Amino acid sequence: MEGEPTLRLRIFDLNCWAIRYLSKRRQERVRLIGDTLRQESFDLVLLQEVWSEQDYSDLKVKLAACYPFSHYFRSGVIGSGLCVFSRFPILDTLLYQYSLNGYPYMLQHGDWFCGKSVGLPGSRAGVGMGVTAPLLSLSLQLHAEYCRDKDAYLPHRLVQAWELAQFIRHTSKAADVVLLGGDLNMHPEDVGIRLLRGWTGLRDAFAEATHFEGCKNGCTLVPDNCFTDKAELLPFPLGIRIDYILYKAISSFTVKCEELKTTTGPAPGMDIPFSDHEAVMATLHIQRQGQPASATLGTADLALADVVTEARTEVAVGLRAAQRQRYSSGRMAVLALLLLLLQAAAALGTLAGLGAEQPFPKFSFCLLAFLALGVLVLAAGLHLFHTMEVKMLHGTEDQMWMALRALQERP
Amino acid sequence: MEGEPTLRLRIFDLNCWAIRYLSKRRQERVRLIGDTLRQESFDLVLLQEVWSEQDYSDLKVKLAACYPFSHYFRSGVIGSGLCVFSRFPILDTLLYQYSLNGYPYMLQHGDWFCGKSVGLPGSRAGVGMGVTAPLLSLSLQLHAEYCRDKDAYLPHRLVQAWELAQFIRHTSKAADVVLLGGDLNMHPEDVGIRLLRGWTGLRDAFAEATHFEGCKNGCTLVPDNCFTDKAELLPFPLGIRIDYILYKAISSFTVKCEELKTTTGPAPGMDIPFSDHEAVMATLHIQRQGQPASATLGTADLALADVVTEARTEVAVGLRAAQRQRYSSGRMAVLALLLLLLQAAAALGTLAGLGAEQPFPKFSFCLLAFLALGVLVLAAGLHLFHTMEVKMLHGTEDQMWMALRALQERP
Repeated sequence: MEGEPTLRLRIFDLNCWAIRYLSKRRQERVRLIGDTLRQESFDLVLLQEVWSEQDYSDLKVKLAACYPFSHYFRSGVIGSGLCVFSRFPILDTLLYQYSLNGYPYMLQHGDWFCGKSVGLPGSRAGVGMGVTAPLLSLSLQLHAEYCRDKDAYLPHRLVQAWELAQFIRHTSKAADVVLLGGDLNMHPEDVGIRLLRGWTGLRDAFAEATHFEGCKNGCTLVPDNCFTDKAELLPFPLGIRIDYILYKAISSFTVKCEELKTTTGPAPGMDIPFSDHEAVMATLHIQRQGQPASATLGTADLALADVVTEARTEVAVGLRAAQRQRYSSGRMAVLALLLLLLQAAAALGTLAGLGAEQPFPKFSFCLLAFLALGVLVLAAGLHLFHTMEVKMLHGTEDQMWMALRALQERP
Repeated sequence: MEGEPTLRLRIFDLNCWAIRYLSKRRQERVRLIGDTLRQESFDLVLLQEVWSEQDYSDLKVKLAACYPFSHYFRSGVIGSGLCVFSRFPILDTLLYQYSLNGYPYMLQHGDWFCGKSVGLPGSRAGVGMGVTAPLLSLSLQLHAEYCRDKDAYLPHRLVQAWELAQFIRHTSKAADVVLLGGDLNMHPEDVGIRLLRGWTGLRDAFAEATHFEGCKNGCTLVPDNCFTDKAELLPFPLGIRIDYILYKAISSFTVKCEELKTTTGPAPGMDIPFSDHEAVMATLHIQRQGQPASATLGTADLALADVVTEARTEVAVGLRAAQRQRYSSGRMAVLALLLLLLQAAAALGTLAGLGAEQPFPKFSFCLLAFLALGVLVLAAGLHLFHTMEVKMLHGTEDQMWMALRALQERP
């Protein structure tokens, strides 16, 4: 084993919080991130929330010498915010947009407009001695959690975690090493994380690292960071861990996490941090081994079935809520339509000379029609949206059921 | 080779045209399709345009004995219309929704509401002598072509063909055999088909079949079918071929198409055909061979680069059109907003007592405000939609450029 070629891979992952006009000291921070990346020269840099293409272009110019390969993933109205810089050639990319991602009418949460997705750049890293390992790295962000106690987006985030897991299972089959870095918006013990890890076999760099340095418990949203919302972190005085680097080796490679680091508030020698999230940096050792690693998933089948069942229950709760919303928006649309028809009948009656003794209340008639039409359009739109939501939640529930059956039928 | 285990796989593919309330004699035809499938007992049945879940459930009940495994893919407002019946266990499914699929305001074309997608059931077919081949089959439908001479949807269909090709490349790596059946809505020589086949290495069952039986040139939309639109087929007196079965073998398997058949109008002993499309039925021979097949893609790199360039040009044309539409809808929204602001100023002026000598024209004021608001909402919605369209077309153009670079850099 000792003589086998080894690749030491340094990965940098950060939710950059670079929203034009909204994020504080954005340009300064993006410059700082660029400078640091240039000095440190990682092998792979996975960034999220780079919403402005201009910021990406600036970074690309600045990093061209140390990271000759890069890709920006476009999607949604605003974009996916995902980009990747790499020392290894990016051979191929694929973008998978989650089928559910919040509600377009929740403007204050904005997730829907971002087209949250997972970007997959396929590359090939040299392991030395002429051996190269197909490397599949994923950069991603899941739907944000706005209220932990009453998390209305949990079913959507679970659908995303499931789709992500399925996407990884299907696309990673011929890769030797799979790396995932991103803001999963889930605490380590949440059902979505357990589902993702259990269903794909990905390992958590924080849990596996031989050496760790950074915020306590590997937290990436900490009160020490001047940009974080202190009220949000009140129940968690140490902070929370929602940014992860996950990895697994397939076929005849092994991956070990030698070191994991997080930033701790302000960047070295500066008064501001990179972002409202802390960056996660991992050093992995990828080694070729003689024979293919035996699948150790089977032993955990029972625990996995429990996780899938738990997730499926949450999705079912979301499904029922979506069905209720679909029903009530449909009923509202029908009522508005009835009102419009009634008004049309009244107008026709007046035109035909009925009730001519009284003046026709043009103004209030017009106002009412305006209101009814507005409600009709809005309610019909909502009905369509919730119909799609029901379909997707139902589809995911089906897929989870199929997975459970497959797990139970395994010898 | 002769002694190696062989699997004979019979596949049935049909666009069922089963739209509730709209398709002629739908229930009768779905019954007929079910009866035929039960009698013929294929190995794999890929159906499209089964829009009603009730129809799927009826088919499932009827076919439970001969096709114990099935899956219905849910997506979009109406659904994807895709379903699969299989003699082999379906181990896993994945649904990929194309990022572009027509326009929501083209109600008469309705593609947007269908959530067109590709459904991927992964299964495992026994090849005999204890050898099983992971089988990846895809059922799909691309955006319809409504006017061949002035095809406004060509860029969308090309984006779909590209995404489909990328999806196949990324998901098929560990499969031994990939099968694709569906209504591609493209003629055999169209750039989208050439792109899909060139970029994935899929082979056309019609072109490869040792024995063929059915409509001339393998057409699947023929004038002899009583449900087809005769006017649409005027330029093509023999009909057109838009439904395909494509396949390829990966790793150490070979696939040969022994026989391809299409239906020819009315079903045997009946006065009606199954659908407005003809069904395509293929018999494939899957055989294990000693060593992995050598990649023959390299030799065709130059031709493939030409196809990708051609497709990229078309996507660029679509991108410019989308940018124009985004600009004009944005301008319209701004104008409507200005009009509303002007009206608000006028109303405030009146409230402040200006121009009190003249009566305030409440009715026309209200009507105008109503109109302006309607235009604002509509134009803003269109602007958002075309912004997403621009992002996706731009992203696809980027990906195609990356593919071209990779092709040119190959030794």
